[in-house]
Amino acid sequence: MAASVALIQGASRGLGLEFCKHILKNKSLAAVVATCRNPDGAADLRGLAGQHPGRVTVLKLDVNREEDVRGAAERVKESFGRLDLIVNASAMLHPSGKGETSLRDVSAQGVISTLTTNTVGPLVMAKYFAPLLQKGGGGFGQQPAEKAKQHGGIIVNITAKVGSIGDNGLGGWYSYRMSKAALNMATRNLSIELGRGRPKVVCVSLHPGTVDTDLSRPYHRNVPKDKLFSPEHSVNCLMGIIESLSIEKTGKAYNWDGTELPW
Amino acid sequence: MAASVALIQGASRGLGLEFCKHILKNKSLAAVVATCRNPDGAADLRGLAGQHPGRVTVLKLDVNREEDVRGAAERVKESFGRLDLIVNASAMLHPSGKGETSLRDVSAQGVISTLTTNTVGPLVMAKYFAPLLQKGGGGFGQQPAEKAKQHGGIIVNITAKVGSIGDNGLGGWYSYRMSKAALNMATRNLSIELGRGRPKVVCVSLHPGTVDTDLSRPYHRNVPKDKLFSPEHSVNCLMGIIESLSIEKTGKAYNWDGTELPW
Repeated sequence: MAASVALIQGASRGLGLEFCKHILKNKSLAAVVATCRNPDGAADLRGLAGQHPGRVTVLKLDVNREEDVRGAAERVKESFGRLDLIVNASAMLHPSGKGETSLRDVSAQGVISTLTTNTVGPLVMAKYFAPLLQKGGGGFGQQPAEKAKQHGGIIVNITAKVGSIGDNGLGGWYSYRMSKAALNMATRNLSIELGRGRPKVVCVSLHPGTVDTDLSRPYHRNVPKDKLFSPEHSVNCLMGIIESLSIEKTGKAYNWDGTELPW
Repeated sequence: MAASVALIQGASRGLGLEFCKHILKNKSLAAVVATCRNPDGAADLRGLAGQHPGRVTVLKLDVNREEDVRGAAERVKESFGRLDLIVNASAMLHPSGKGETSLRDVSAQGVISTLTTNTVGPLVMAKYFAPLLQKGGGGFGQQPAEKAKQHGGIIVNITAKVGSIGDNGLGGWYSYRMSKAALNMATRNLSIELGRGRPKVVCVSLHPGTVDTDLSRPYHRNVPKDKLFSPEHSVNCLMGIIESLSIEKTGKAYNWDGTELPW
């Protein structure tokens, strides 16, 4: 039986794939449930699973399909009966691949699609996986001595600094910014509801920095080289934060360096 | 020709209807464009229009239909050529009429519907009406002496205190809270984009207090009587804030008493 179980949603590439790699390498007794929309097309993920026989369960899951999420939760329940960590890593900038530079680029359908994937998806994940996280063994993060303050599982929603309303000085990227602001509210709400039960579930939003992934690649021209992270470096930082989490730190948004991000 | 033109979106009842009444009463030279989904069913609004011949234009507009918004903007452009104030007043708590008390009540479709009406709607309004607000005559708010800082129009998005992430200590109401947090991000983004042009457009989110309207009525049991506002009192407070606005105050969320609401 695995010592801990982590589910990475959006695991076929980018940050999600890197979370899988990191956990497989650094948590030698952990099992990984890796979900993505199209496992058949996820060659890197399938290769990784092949390198770690018996440790990776790849599940087809589109966060926009509530029945997929429900089905995946049933599979995890049957196989493991619990979950210690869930990372909601999938996101889109905009269906067009480009964030809106001005109101002219805004369309109702573009905003709705982005909100559905980036915001509603992680919340629906929380709905179906919360019961398993409440049965988690606290395999990630720090446990305080006081039993009543210990946590079973952790929910990590990957947010973005541009999703901070207070930090927004530039504007643009309407859909993406709005989706991450609403996601931060979901994190906050989840932290309250899931902080009441026992064992508790810790819920945070994490900003990965500017990472060299498909989502952000078109926008790297003006990023100084030392501010452009590899997925490996970013996930290294984020896993450091995750392993430092306890219920005292729930319900907040953190930068990759552990500092708190304003709402 | 009207001295100023205000558009109230969601004008058939509640706060929206009250904004129309207030402006008709207190700004005797202003014209009001009152939009609602179903003018035929809006007896109170049609009655009000009848009491103020020539001052009220009632337009059918469902914010979930981008073509409705575009059409209404064309009508206002033809009739007035400009706009001094737009108030996005319509909102829903949840399609069921009840905010989610826990994750169990969350459904993807419920969240998406609420986001579409409460968040995407006002943003699409801004998209189509921004050019008219930029031609506004500054009929609402305060104008500083310096010409470069003067505004043409004002966008008011009706938010809610429960949409403040930082203020959220109770949880629940996932859809509504998320929709208002995302709306606040829209306000912030709009204030940046529309603060660059000239004349500028001031954009704020306003929290009306706990008001006795259809939206909130099921939740009044625990509200102390002196905290439960009539629509008249709430709009009185909000119009006081609106008439105090200038570009210095753009991009923020304010309570009914003028204090700033945290994001």
